[in-house]
Amino acid sequence: MEESFPMTGGDGPYSYAKNSKLQKEAAVKAKSVIVEAIIEKLEVEDTPSIASTFRIADLGCSTGPNTFFSVNTIIEAVTHKYKTKGHSSLPDFQVHFNDHVSNDFNMLFNSLPPGRQYFVSGVPGSFHSRLFPKASLHFVCSAYALQWLSRVPQELSDINSPAYNRGRIFYSNAPNEVGKAYTAQYAMDMERFLAARSKEIVPGGLMALLIPGRPDGTLPAESSIGPIFQTLESCLVDMANEGIINKAKIDLFNLPMYCPSPEELRQLIQKNGSFSIARLESNTGAGRKQLCGAGECRSGLENIIVGHFGSDIVEELFERYTKKIAELPPLDTGETSGIGLCIILKRNH
Amino acid sequence: MEESFPMTGGDGPYSYAKNSKLQKEAAVKAKSVIVEAIIEKLEVEDTPSIASTFRIADLGCSTGPNTFFSVNTIIEAVTHKYKTKGHSSLPDFQVHFNDHVSNDFNMLFNSLPPGRQYFVSGVPGSFHSRLFPKASLHFVCSAYALQWLSRVPQELSDINSPAYNRGRIFYSNAPNEVGKAYTAQYAMDMERFLAARSKEIVPGGLMALLIPGRPDGTLPAESSIGPIFQTLESCLVDMANEGIINKAKIDLFNLPMYCPSPEELRQLIQKNGSFSIARLESNTGAGRKQLCGAGECRSGLENIIVGHFGSDIVEELFERYTKKIAELPPLDTGETSGIGLCIILKRNH
Repeated sequence: MEESFPMTGGDGPYSYAKNSKLQKEAAVKAKSVIVEAIIEKLEVEDTPSIASTFRIADLGCSTGPNTFFSVNTIIEAVTHKYKTKGHSSLPDFQVHFNDHVSNDFNMLFNSLPPGRQYFVSGVPGSFHSRLFPKASLHFVCSAYALQWLSRVPQELSDINSPAYNRGRIFYSNAPNEVGKAYTAQYAMDMERFLAARSKEIVPGGLMALLIPGRPDGTLPAESSIGPIFQTLESCLVDMANEGIINKAKIDLFNLPMYCPSPEELRQLIQKNGSFSIARLESNTGAGRKQLCGAGECRSGLENIIVGHFGSDIVEELFERYTKKIAELPPLDTGETSGIGLCIILKRNH
Repeated sequence: MEESFPMTGGDGPYSYAKNSKLQKEAAVKAKSVIVEAIIEKLEVEDTPSIASTFRIADLGCSTGPNTFFSVNTIIEAVTHKYKTKGHSSLPDFQVHFNDHVSNDFNMLFNSLPPGRQYFVSGVPGSFHSRLFPKASLHFVCSAYALQWLSRVPQELSDINSPAYNRGRIFYSNAPNEVGKAYTAQYAMDMERFLAARSKEIVPGGLMALLIPGRPDGTLPAESSIGPIFQTLESCLVDMANEGIINKAKIDLFNLPMYCPSPEELRQLIQKNGSFSIARLESNTGAGRKQLCGAGECRSGLENIIVGHFGSDIVEELFERYTKKIAELPPLDTGETSGIGLCIILKRNH
């Protein structure tokens, strides 16, 4: 069974739309990499179908507004490329905004930028499966969505497994077996992701992925997003100790997220074999407080927490979380091992 | 300014999803016409782009479930045609579900049939404008949506115009000038509709339209949907007489709907010039009680009534409506002049 973990919809104070500034900063950083990739790597003259419609997909777009920024970057760069190549007419642009069925597409459609120069389509479904007809996409992007696994690794809830994750909600601070279970799930998910995209993207088409990662040579447990979740975990444990939450419920709750290293990703892409790596860049990320204030954390995790623990505990949990992160010492950015990976893949001919 | 009048969303007792049985019956009736048109008229071998992806659009799809029935009819017939033509492989099917931005796409996506054999896309926007890239669609259908005008004719709210529609909400029982204003608005809207579709549909592609109409040789005011709205109108007038609604508000409220005659449509299609008429059939419609019970009427009109009169009056209005139509004498089906038009158009080469 696929699980889905949509960001909080609408435009309330804890909505994703109001709590995605950091993702926006990452998208701004990635802009020049994407523009250069289109200028240098995109093959506009070799693919006849490109001449009429240029199809873009944003996978895991949530409810905006960052997705509109990414899409504009791509369209501007492709337009520029067509013009410098001397094409007399531009293709029509069609943009497919993809996210889970449970994403708030109504909100997304209501916030579409007026005066946009492209045709809009919303595509519901998991990007771990096929979403588009064969060879129908020319540029795929996905920003800060591929850290989501299709499911929590099953061993984590098996009391007889060495990966049983008692008293924890993530793989940081956990035995190596827990990290390994996450690594194996990520490898399966990425293979499914790459296999689906290899069918959907035209030969010579590009894919730009922004992924939160960790440096080469580090263990999964050393991922920089660990500390964020440790704070959340300790709030949950406090509430269990006070009898507000059942302890056994924490044992069975794990976050379906994973941060790979560049080398890990490189190997998965090579094993799949359909794409060549045009670029793979690491940017040192921000410290933990910047990475996830209470608003960001809540917009991303509220749905999954409510699904497991019910809605009654949410207010109190995030009140405790807000208080706890305010008490943490400020982090030197040099201390963090968080990196943002920006990868440009080209579909082989 | 475009206006939009979505059906009531969700799956509550007055939702479109729960009140569209009659539209379903019409779709069942139209099934054989659509299947025959695909078998006889669709050009599967002449259009190279068809070989990889076959793109279908349902314009004004609302929230389902009828749209899924129409789409299945089309895909089964196209598949059959491919097989009898000896094609060794089938195209991928992609279905674009279109309706206004304010349509409940979340509901639509949540009710997608499991095990479907096509890729899904939701396309928000008015079908009186461009929605898709050029030459990207192979089959377009629209069932009981084209009666909606893009706006109420402006003269109807102009107190100095002979088409000022005092005390009425529609063109039945109105001076000829009112009907003429509606006819003119419909002609403009259909020209915009056909112009947009002529760019989007591949040469040789088909369009199937189900439209509530009236017989040739009748005046607009004789349209069979008139009596439905007269009942609603008389409820509003009663409420105005009792001081519940401001009378001036009724003078400025008009329903943006129109039922053309076959000849009227034929002329508009010929004037546009991009399509040839493969088929134009009239089916005698059902009587007024069957055409619009309180549930159907409310699911279609609640949003537009609330937009003009506010939400306070809705419960009472439809209570009165339910009572009034229950008191009407049962209609002989022979008495009605309501017809359903089923039109198959082929995009010229």
